[in-house]
Amino acid sequence: MTSAVGVHDGLYGGSLALLTDLYQVTMAAAYARAGREDTEAVFHLYFRENPFGGGYAVACGLATALEYLASFSFDDADLAYLATLKGDDDEPLLSPDSLGRLAALELSVDVDAVPEGTIVFPNEPLLRIRGPIVQCQLLETPLLNIINFQTLIATKAARVVTAACGDPVVEFGLRRAQGVDGGVAASRAAYAGGCAATSNVLAGRLFGIPVRGTHAHSWVMAFPTELEAFEAYADAMPNNVILLVDTYDTIEGMRNAITVGLRLRSSGRRLAGIRLDSGDLAALSIVARAMLDDAGLTDVDIVASNELDEHIVASLKEQGARIDVWGVGTKLVTAHGQPALGGVYKLSAIRRPGQKWQWRLKVSESSAKSTDPGIRQIRRFFGPDGVPNGDMIYDARSQPSGACTIVDHDDPTLRSSFAQDAHFEDLLVPAVRAGKVVYADPTLPEVRERTMTQLEAFGTRVTRFLNPHRYPVGLERGLHELRTELILAARGQEGRP
Amino acid sequence: MTSAVGVHDGLYGGSLALLTDLYQVTMAAAYARAGREDTEAVFHLYFRENPFGGGYAVACGLATALEYLASFSFDDADLAYLATLKGDDDEPLLSPDSLGRLAALELSVDVDAVPEGTIVFPNEPLLRIRGPIVQCQLLETPLLNIINFQTLIATKAARVVTAACGDPVVEFGLRRAQGVDGGVAASRAAYAGGCAATSNVLAGRLFGIPVRGTHAHSWVMAFPTELEAFEAYADAMPNNVILLVDTYDTIEGMRNAITVGLRLRSSGRRLAGIRLDSGDLAALSIVARAMLDDAGLTDVDIVASNELDEHIVASLKEQGARIDVWGVGTKLVTAHGQPALGGVYKLSAIRRPGQKWQWRLKVSESSAKSTDPGIRQIRRFFGPDGVPNGDMIYDARSQPSGACTIVDHDDPTLRSSFAQDAHFEDLLVPAVRAGKVVYADPTLPEVRERTMTQLEAFGTRVTRFLNPHRYPVGLERGLHELRTELILAARGQEGRP
Repeated sequence: MTSAVGVHDGLYGGSLALLTDLYQVTMAAAYARAGREDTEAVFHLYFRENPFGGGYAVACGLATALEYLASFSFDDADLAYLATLKGDDDEPLLSPDSLGRLAALELSVDVDAVPEGTIVFPNEPLLRIRGPIVQCQLLETPLLNIINFQTLIATKAARVVTAACGDPVVEFGLRRAQGVDGGVAASRAAYAGGCAATSNVLAGRLFGIPVRGTHAHSWVMAFPTELEAFEAYADAMPNNVILLVDTYDTIEGMRNAITVGLRLRSSGRRLAGIRLDSGDLAALSIVARAMLDDAGLTDVDIVASNELDEHIVASLKEQGARIDVWGVGTKLVTAHGQPALGGVYKLSAIRRPGQKWQWRLKVSESSAKSTDPGIRQIRRFFGPDGVPNGDMIYDARSQPSGACTIVDHDDPTLRSSFAQDAHFEDLLVPAVRAGKVVYADPTLPEVRERTMTQLEAFGTRVTRFLNPHRYPVGLERGLHELRTELILAARGQEGRP
Repeated sequence: MTSAVGVHDGLYGGSLALLTDLYQVTMAAAYARAGREDTEAVFHLYFRENPFGGGYAVACGLATALEYLASFSFDDADLAYLATLKGDDDEPLLSPDSLGRLAALELSVDVDAVPEGTIVFPNEPLLRIRGPIVQCQLLETPLLNIINFQTLIATKAARVVTAACGDPVVEFGLRRAQGVDGGVAASRAAYAGGCAATSNVLAGRLFGIPVRGTHAHSWVMAFPTELEAFEAYADAMPNNVILLVDTYDTIEGMRNAITVGLRLRSSGRRLAGIRLDSGDLAALSIVARAMLDDAGLTDVDIVASNELDEHIVASLKEQGARIDVWGVGTKLVTAHGQPALGGVYKLSAIRRPGQKWQWRLKVSESSAKSTDPGIRQIRRFFGPDGVPNGDMIYDARSQPSGACTIVDHDDPTLRSSFAQDAHFEDLLVPAVRAGKVVYADPTLPEVRERTMTQLEAFGTRVTRFLNPHRYPVGLERGLHELRTELILAARGQEGRP
């Protein structure tokens, strides 16, 4: 074995400080050489469009991101590797001084974050990072990697769970996930988004997620007959008997499962369920339910799987399918329909020592894609019934008072106002101060509970798949006006009305 | 920090033996309790359709899979966790005897595999695993996870590289990849599939892939003017000067880059490139090339990025874009268009001690989706010109002699024959014997070279995006006939003509 894949020591082994883009490292070196390593910066991590054409996203990945930050440092192997990198003149890319600075680097950033399981919308910062610009840059790539993916999967899971109308959804996508962590992180995020359990045992061990399983077609094929296979499984695993009935012929498989179910019952045990994994799941589940009920096995669950996603689950529900538990794999963990969230991490302010904050934004061809200035916070307003009415993105250094007006990010003629005495909550909470994690993570079941509670509060106007309501989110009017001025100034058009 | 995400000790830390579905563990226990733990089995890992509607796939992930196997064992933390699992009666799911068997488990399987970088087709086994059925099952999920994803990404990369017609393609998808390993494994597979470099520094350290980078928009925004930012970067990183010109206005950015380029030249240094990251890349690259050439900077490369994939690269080429280096990120590493390969792992034969092999197959509604029997090998036939003519899947225990006829898997009326004296190569090679890795991995550059050589040999008939040629692959006629008999027998229709 000459490769260095590194799976034997966990995955990769050692430091993950190099889990970043090369340009972050070269910019870190360049800031120091340019005498600007003392520049303080503010970055925000956000996405621009709801995934899957839906009406919301579920924030996820913060605990993983904080764990990454808590362990961040360049180890000797990292530095030795960086020392080998060459520029286009074949001389070292990084000087000994640059490497020494990385070796000595200790995080001192502040991070504010939206708690996991919070329903969020486009342009809302999920993370706000403030600190030395070099550190902010080095963290850009890993923070985006972690938050983008887990938010995407928690959102997909919430959609599937919504379609299942309260039935348990079990995630079992590991075998077709995008790499090892594409599976493990997906199991975490799927549970946070509302799934009831996973088949992924490592995710169970790492995160305490309930794990579930049945048996494979190969179990049936390893015995002379299906009935013998079912009997053997029921005897061997008496407290986990869910029989997969479609290896040869589903109706015949159902008959064999019922034979075993009746025998189990006569000995005081129980057939927990049967699983359908192919064919017309709507029709087969209706037949299976009738067969089970006719045999008196009314307490046996019907589990279904086979390339399910939120749309197929919703369609099966509409067709009257009698499915009790939904096994969802590939299309959940790979975020079928939109395999990347597209989150970005943008500079909004810089400050040199002893100077005032200077706002920064990147101008794009359209105003909608230009970035926002400020050190931003999200304020969520609620109606008297506790239902969220709208979110205001404002500058955290100002405390908005009086009635608040927000201006839509993409269409400045769309505005909403909130009464002076409206109940509100600020979504970003302190997570890291001076490089140290100060946020006490909720447990993963608590995150899941938050997701479910918020989905309920936002309701179908936001969660429906077709033409979801555009929940009001906008910049506080003063911040909107500042942004407009800055865009015009950047375009050299300050005088334009 | 109360969570157990485990990123501080590499990723997860400790054993990855639990990187599997729960049902593999419960089946392992059940086989022992059913007195069948001595059953020997043969499984094959293969996919059923070429990804992305294309004409081929690039086998990838074997080195990672072998590293996984080399380190496979249940550690104390794994066993302690498994001991906590409960069945539906709240009693332990796994008995002390079952846990003891897992603790003592040492792999003894044989694995044969297609080398990485080999062009492969539907129904061809990429891996063949033979050994105790319990071990084969436990390995199903991790092997599928690793091979599915890396094969998918190597294929996507090969497509992008094909579209770029020899221009270097640099992968920089880490920030939007599906989790940490969704990024790191993707960087490995993208390089194996033909990319020239990655931005992912950890992948550089782990796999020796060349790493490349430019700078971010934030670098420009951190300085009072774009020109000052460019000058500072050129001074700070003189041997890696690639300037991103679209932070404010691309044409103005080009002028500033040219100013810096001319100054660098006058001091004996060099502007290596400029990068375009937004706007009309075709038009802007043509303008940028003319501006650079007019200034005498003919050796400055134009790098382009922004949501590129094989189709956009091909379209830009058609439009006459003057792009020298293609930066491809999100859509490459998340396999846009088809985020999962859909590979399967199917039982084909079992043997009890002292008995003969018994063929096994799972019957589906259509013959095409039914599995294949046998202990299979792939024989690739070549014409006198060295061009591959067709692949025969045959039973490895027989040595086909004389002229060979293959029967298409999906349409038995499609057949091809190969002359007795045709040159051939068998694709599956020994990788693991009695649990020990016996395969000497090629280096990753060698894998990449194999990919490029094979793409060249197969040519555009197979690599083109629209209506690729259906390269002949089929079961050796005898194996096809055996399969047909077994399917009919399973359907209780032995007597049917």
